[in-house]
Amino acid sequence: MSTKRTVFYLSDGTGITAETLGRSLISQFENFTFTHVTIPYINNLEEAQKVVSQINATRAQNGNRPIIVATLVNEAIRKLIATTDALFLDVFNTFVGPLEQELNALSTHRIGRTHAMDDFTKYQTRIEAIDFTIATDDGSSINRYKDADLILVGVSRCGKTPTSLYLALQHGLCVANYPITEEDLNQDDLPAVLLNEKKKLFGLMIDSQRLQSIRSERRPNSQYASLATCQKELRFAENMFLHHQIKHINTTSLSIEEIATKIITQLGLKGKLSR
Amino acid sequence: MSTKRTVFYLSDGTGITAETLGRSLISQFENFTFTHVTIPYINNLEEAQKVVSQINATRAQNGNRPIIVATLVNEAIRKLIATTDALFLDVFNTFVGPLEQELNALSTHRIGRTHAMDDFTKYQTRIEAIDFTIATDDGSSINRYKDADLILVGVSRCGKTPTSLYLALQHGLCVANYPITEEDLNQDDLPAVLLNEKKKLFGLMIDSQRLQSIRSERRPNSQYASLATCQKELRFAENMFLHHQIKHINTTSLSIEEIATKIITQLGLKGKLSR
Repeated sequence: MSTKRTVFYLSDGTGITAETLGRSLISQFENFTFTHVTIPYINNLEEAQKVVSQINATRAQNGNRPIIVATLVNEAIRKLIATTDALFLDVFNTFVGPLEQELNALSTHRIGRTHAMDDFTKYQTRIEAIDFTIATDDGSSINRYKDADLILVGVSRCGKTPTSLYLALQHGLCVANYPITEEDLNQDDLPAVLLNEKKKLFGLMIDSQRLQSIRSERRPNSQYASLATCQKELRFAENMFLHHQIKHINTTSLSIEEIATKIITQLGLKGKLSR
Repeated sequence: MSTKRTVFYLSDGTGITAETLGRSLISQFENFTFTHVTIPYINNLEEAQKVVSQINATRAQNGNRPIIVATLVNEAIRKLIATTDALFLDVFNTFVGPLEQELNALSTHRIGRTHAMDDFTKYQTRIEAIDFTIATDDGSSINRYKDADLILVGVSRCGKTPTSLYLALQHGLCVANYPITEEDLNQDDLPAVLLNEKKKLFGLMIDSQRLQSIRSERRPNSQYASLATCQKELRFAENMFLHHQIKHINTTSLSIEEIATKIITQLGLKGKLSR
């Protein structure tokens, strides 16, 4: 049996829900090579018919059935897609029924609601969080720390910036980040601006060898990238976290999503975008 | 019947898949007030037992059944959660079965794979995209445009920065953004640095009144925020897009996710993080 399959993520909105769920399911099958095709905004039967043709062509070409993960609200579109010879994982249809029964209410069947903008205030919150996070990236604008929801602290290249931006974008949090540098080492303590906001601090650690390899990509053979420098800075950072009882995690084997989730959980933060 | 319900998103990983799907389903029911509780990293029976207690307490307090959206791989944990008096939408169990049958293979049942870091090269791609995008934000480092996957163009506050960062974080794309300013208006054309990379350009438009209200939040009663200025800049921007045949969309009623999805679709871009 062939181990190559094509997965179609179909949606009348952005397709983000279908793709997120589908990839999650697919990741449970390791010995296969999947080709991923996301088709968003399937909003009428004409579009749907094109998708049917594309799926049928893939079926014929691959010699095996494609997999469809769909979050399609419109019933006529769903039925048309279901005519293809594919495994059809019909996400909305599967779960909306039980929910309607439980809530004793009909779903609105409105299209593409999930990642649509339906609240201007929430949109503003998100934009402000991103603005704040960029303005306070990498130790800038420390005078704005009083307005931060969270301040990430760690040595250069331990994952502060991507984590900050992820938290701003996905959770609407104002996240500053402060790099521990040579200068702080020489002062032998964290700067006052941080210690004044101690409750907002969260430390990121990383294994020294991983740090060395990340830094070497940026500045090969530099003092900055040497293992000795990495070890020295990390030792200082960890000592400071322990000394000041600042919560911290090791990011070496974690994705940005995992780091963000662990910080939110450990600090008991609440995202600002929940409806 | 009460219209207040608590929704629990349960996962042995970050909970992002459960929450994305759950919110998508829940958004189909408009006349309810939902309280959202995400509980990530439920990795053993002891943790699961605590969650069971929490769900039961909510059940007793609210006087109606909570809704559970779960992406739990471990069967013992799943069975324990299923003992609660709640509507249990068991995402993995529902779809993994049909997938196993279709693929004629057993799922690996590995925990929390979806948003875990299992590929260091992909992680690097993502970090580099974020670095690039921050470095080229708001017209900076235009000498790096040759390395961009995409360059967003538009007037100040039309959504360029959040869209750029979203595309970098979620799709690993190197996205520069260039603000159209008074200076460009006076030159009566887009600068050469943009026109040299015409294929990478994508324009963002926004309604003048929305733009006025966004700018007024930043600088109330300023020339910058006046309706006349907004209209003049937008007219110039649109004329440039039409004159140089640059694809563009109006972002007024779109979320960041929708803007990003439409750009990817219209330019036929391919994300760099697909496995």
